[in-house]
Amino acid sequence: MTQLQQAGAGDITAQMQRVAQREGVSAELIRQELAAGRLVIPANRLHLAGLGEPGAKLDPCGIGRAVTTKINANIGTSPVSSSRTPSPGQGQQRELVKLQWATRFGADAVMDLSTGGDLDETRRLIIANSSVPIGTVPIYSMIAAKAVEDLTYDDILAEVSAQALQGVDFFTIHAGLLRAHLPLVGNRKMGIVSRGGSLLAKWMVHNGRENPMYEMFDELSAILREHDVTYSLGDGLRPGCLADASDEAQFAELDTCGELAARARQAGVQVMVEGPGHIPFDQIQMNVARQQQICDGAPFYVLGPIVTDVFAGCDHITSAIGATAAAYYGASFLCYVTPAEHLSLPTPEDVKAGCIACKIAAHAADVARGLPGARKWDDEISDARAEFDWQKQFQLAFDGQTARAIRQRDMDDDADYCSMCGKEWCALRISRDIGLKIPSAQKPQDRT
Amino acid sequence: MTQLQQAGAGDITAQMQRVAQREGVSAELIRQELAAGRLVIPANRLHLAGLGEPGAKLDPCGIGRAVTTKINANIGTSPVSSSRTPSPGQGQQRELVKLQWATRFGADAVMDLSTGGDLDETRRLIIANSSVPIGTVPIYSMIAAKAVEDLTYDDILAEVSAQALQGVDFFTIHAGLLRAHLPLVGNRKMGIVSRGGSLLAKWMVHNGRENPMYEMFDELSAILREHDVTYSLGDGLRPGCLADASDEAQFAELDTCGELAARARQAGVQVMVEGPGHIPFDQIQMNVARQQQICDGAPFYVLGPIVTDVFAGCDHITSAIGATAAAYYGASFLCYVTPAEHLSLPTPEDVKAGCIACKIAAHAADVARGLPGARKWDDEISDARAEFDWQKQFQLAFDGQTARAIRQRDMDDDADYCSMCGKEWCALRISRDIGLKIPSAQKPQDRT
Repeated sequence: MTQLQQAGAGDITAQMQRVAQREGVSAELIRQELAAGRLVIPANRLHLAGLGEPGAKLDPCGIGRAVTTKINANIGTSPVSSSRTPSPGQGQQRELVKLQWATRFGADAVMDLSTGGDLDETRRLIIANSSVPIGTVPIYSMIAAKAVEDLTYDDILAEVSAQALQGVDFFTIHAGLLRAHLPLVGNRKMGIVSRGGSLLAKWMVHNGRENPMYEMFDELSAILREHDVTYSLGDGLRPGCLADASDEAQFAELDTCGELAARARQAGVQVMVEGPGHIPFDQIQMNVARQQQICDGAPFYVLGPIVTDVFAGCDHITSAIGATAAAYYGASFLCYVTPAEHLSLPTPEDVKAGCIACKIAAHAADVARGLPGARKWDDEISDARAEFDWQKQFQLAFDGQTARAIRQRDMDDDADYCSMCGKEWCALRISRDIGLKIPSAQKPQDRT
Repeated sequence: MTQLQQAGAGDITAQMQRVAQREGVSAELIRQELAAGRLVIPANRLHLAGLGEPGAKLDPCGIGRAVTTKINANIGTSPVSSSRTPSPGQGQQRELVKLQWATRFGADAVMDLSTGGDLDETRRLIIANSSVPIGTVPIYSMIAAKAVEDLTYDDILAEVSAQALQGVDFFTIHAGLLRAHLPLVGNRKMGIVSRGGSLLAKWMVHNGRENPMYEMFDELSAILREHDVTYSLGDGLRPGCLADASDEAQFAELDTCGELAARARQAGVQVMVEGPGHIPFDQIQMNVARQQQICDGAPFYVLGPIVTDVFAGCDHITSAIGATAAAYYGASFLCYVTPAEHLSLPTPEDVKAGCIACKIAAHAADVARGLPGARKWDDEISDARAEFDWQKQFQLAFDGQTARAIRQRDMDDDADYCSMCGKEWCALRISRDIGLKIPSAQKPQDRT
């Protein structure tokens, strides 16, 4: 049985126990949310059992509104990166470095979006080395050997099955994009900007038939059910610029995703739904509310949203803005965007920048929506700040290493002020000196 | 007469004309908004006339809801930076470099917050080299020669007068912080985090008297009126952490600022009001609405808001998130926060990062609030993107140089795809190839 089926039967699995422990909530709450389809725990049974390196067994992670907002980092090769890498092994090693950086900087899940080199081996290595859930877009591998328009139903099922057997925890499947939606794309400024979406559109146009992912949804569900893989229903028609946001094409696909989410649950398969994209700040609340309503509370997994099109090179920031609003209003899972978005394949440094920006969004939203305990972290660092306890600030800060390095440009570690104001100009010190603020715990001997 | 007085009399000044031209709106609209107190044009008559280097005459800038959201960059020395600079001239040159970087990366105004070295000369140089409005916090210079608690009314008026004669365009005056508010600070985690606020609190505690800025508000207004300097009513009690946000102390000061904004206008002096600070994302709309109501639409100038306390080293991002929401809901003027916030005096690179993040917030909010013409920029770059016109994308991007550098890590400038997906995997290309998207203007000869 899948976790969804077990939750429905009233059973609490080890994965639910572990998620409850990590989140500090009851396992019964996790079970209820999972049974209701409002929470998923992407955990392929094979990855759970451990497929590779010691310590790389999957540590189950819950995604849903009842728990903290989660973030995903996309890694993977591209044809360009692979062609420029001296050996396939080096290209794979680089992706493993990105996996390390991603999890070190807070990624709760990682997607392997490789499109260049030996896709099977890269995927195998990433799963074998990851304790966080791994997602893929199986259609990428289907077209390694043949043109997309030549794919048969059997090709598709074979690849999905093979990846499920490799231990992939969640699959992006663009089953909600129908033939009937394609004419709606003609009005757009940017057309289709989803790789999977464009490939399936090409298949439909060439073959004059409906989207095979939609037609074979029950067969696909059977494969996912067998290994407890979670659906991530792809948004092939997500808007690629502000002008295309919230258009008829986007919402037509969302309606189909709502139908498919219900069908997935009926088949006993966990499901989340992907969302935009490029969305102006004022349309984010509406988009999230609409997804939650149409998909009956299925966890919403957003890419961005990016709130302006003109800051290429800084889209980790444009997306952190949109992601905060999305997570505040109802999204559960945020896909990072790196500074390389729209420009290049990300480097490990880009992965770090993307993770940090996305983590800011997730945490700021958790604080804003009043998730129990979320603000404790902020309160602790504020106490440390009020007590001029720099070491504790660096321990508590999300990226304490960078924070320390910025401080140390001007100051020794043991000074009890910073170079922004200097000692005499420190507002905190002045307000303490005049008796306005007595630190909650004065332990000078603890300070360094 | 000040511009406020002229606007009230129905006169359109050259400054209003220029602002209307820059914003693409009618001069009459600018006059009406200025007369109503909903828009300010900080423009000291002396800076307008030109005080220094050729080309550094003030180019008037409008701040208010009827025009685009503006951003401010804080620069200036600190005692630590000055003590480590070999000569005073070098310290000043470094601040002039920051001024250049700030205006190059979109700062509409700059504040000189110097607290170290020769404050008068640094301020003179900055004004003489700036075509954007310059703001200061005059109390910083008052305590160069004596302890804050020893300041007399005459000391205060003399310094404000001297800086007005230097051409400063707007003054942060913490006149809204009253003696009666100080006990409210005792409940806080962080006390007072505003330098000016803490200095005035110290003055009040030591002298047992009311805030001199409040007591002398009419005299100060007379000085500001003489040179048409704009008030920026400081928020000495802004919260320094999420736990202190929206507390009694903060709102008590805001109430006084509302009273003073009305008195400033009656005195013929333009006025804006400063705001927080550290505010959780869910409290931003309420904070902005409250300021707009209490201050009768006076332009709201926010520092941040920073939406979580735990990302020291990345607070340009935490503040861009809060600033977007603030500007969407009603703020007109955003003070940048750099990655060095809470840690160190910013470097020129920090100034750049802070300006870009803040500019993202301003533009994203302008698009979201439907400011006429705001999205044209986004639409143009999206057209260029859809046409694979990389040169045009780099021309249009806010920081095209960085965008180009990221792209060129992997690709030549003349390739018509990028390394993220490679040529064959490009969703845009696929959707165009299957006839879903015909670019609006196909001019291959224009492409490079």
